[in-house]
Amino acid sequence: MMHEFEIYLRAYINLNGGDLDRIWALAVPKAVRRNEFLLREGDICRHKTFVMNGLLRTFGKTADGNEHILQFSPEHSWTLDAESYDHQQPSSYNIAAIENSEVLLWSKADFDGLLADIPELKSLAEQLISRNIYSGRRRLLTALSATPEEKYHEFVQSFPGLLARLPLHMIASYLGISIKTLTRIRQAQLRR
Amino acid sequence: MMHEFEIYLRAYINLNGGDLDRIWALAVPKAVRRNEFLLREGDICRHKTFVMNGLLRTFGKTADGNEHILQFSPEHSWTLDAESYDHQQPSSYNIAAIENSEVLLWSKADFDGLLADIPELKSLAEQLISRNIYSGRRRLLTALSATPEEKYHEFVQSFPGLLARLPLHMIASYLGISIKTLTRIRQAQLRR
Repeated sequence: MMHEFEIYLRAYINLNGGDLDRIWALAVPKAVRRNEFLLREGDICRHKTFVMNGLLRTFGKTADGNEHILQFSPEHSWTLDAESYDHQQPSSYNIAAIENSEVLLWSKADFDGLLADIPELKSLAEQLISRNIYSGRRRLLTALSATPEEKYHEFVQSFPGLLARLPLHMIASYLGISIKTLTRIRQAQLRR
Repeated sequence: MMHEFEIYLRAYINLNGGDLDRIWALAVPKAVRRNEFLLREGDICRHKTFVMNGLLRTFGKTADGNEHILQFSPEHSWTLDAESYDHQQPSSYNIAAIENSEVLLWSKADFDGLLADIPELKSLAEQLISRNIYSGRRRLLTALSATPEEKYHEFVQSFPGLLARLPLHMIASYLGISIKTLTRIRQAQLRR
């Protein structure tokens, strides 16, 4: 696992061996079974989390119990609720595994120490935050303006590898459309 | 204007007089008339912008020419298109004035220099980025899950001071609902 994580990190930043060892030494590997929660609404998000393999989702719930998926986190991506993590306050969101997954966890104290001591890691964290802002803005514009067909098309373009791994109701939830509408769009595409 | 800007900065960070003078010396004040654009889709976002007074909006356009408002920027807030600014690439968004406004502009080179030399300013920038991520996530969840009534209620709670300053069609565009629906919601509230 360390070798795989090293390959991921080295794709973004130059790290010397000592820094890599230190980042790795503070990581706590954890297996998360399908449907298991890594974070529940009301709990505090205590860890920076890197997904080694598998697939997780972040979602909010409305009063009627409906799930609204904000983010999918496949292998080699990071996940947390930043607001809860930064201020160590109860979260409004849930993070749960869609597939059996393996993640690496760092406590906030440990990761803050790494960020303070390793400028390259800090730079990677800033890159990830920036990309998060860019994609969040694009996703908001899509949510406000796109037709269901456009939303689905954009999803297929952005996450071609996820389509076959997700149940329909989760894709519909992520897109903010009904399963009925999603099914109609997919059938229309098949007929073309 | 400097005194007002100083009050704003000192509410968030401790700055010594020399640092404040340096930040101020690199700021270029600009008056933006109502309906004037500060950034047009396809142009590069070259400045970090602080709104001293007035009100601006950031919006994307769809192929049919419709405006979708991502953000309102009233006095004492910052505005830019981060993706265009960070990479000095053409923007997908527009920023235009809703009211006659006065803004302060810093070029990317100047502001990067300030961030590198003034840790307190860097810390403020990080706070603003974090708040941007938190509010972006909340807004996405609202866009995906809330009823038009809930969307309007949340807007009124979040921006009580903006209601009277915005034409109805802009509030509707920001909420991603039709003017007809917005009018119905407002009339129903008045009847209560």
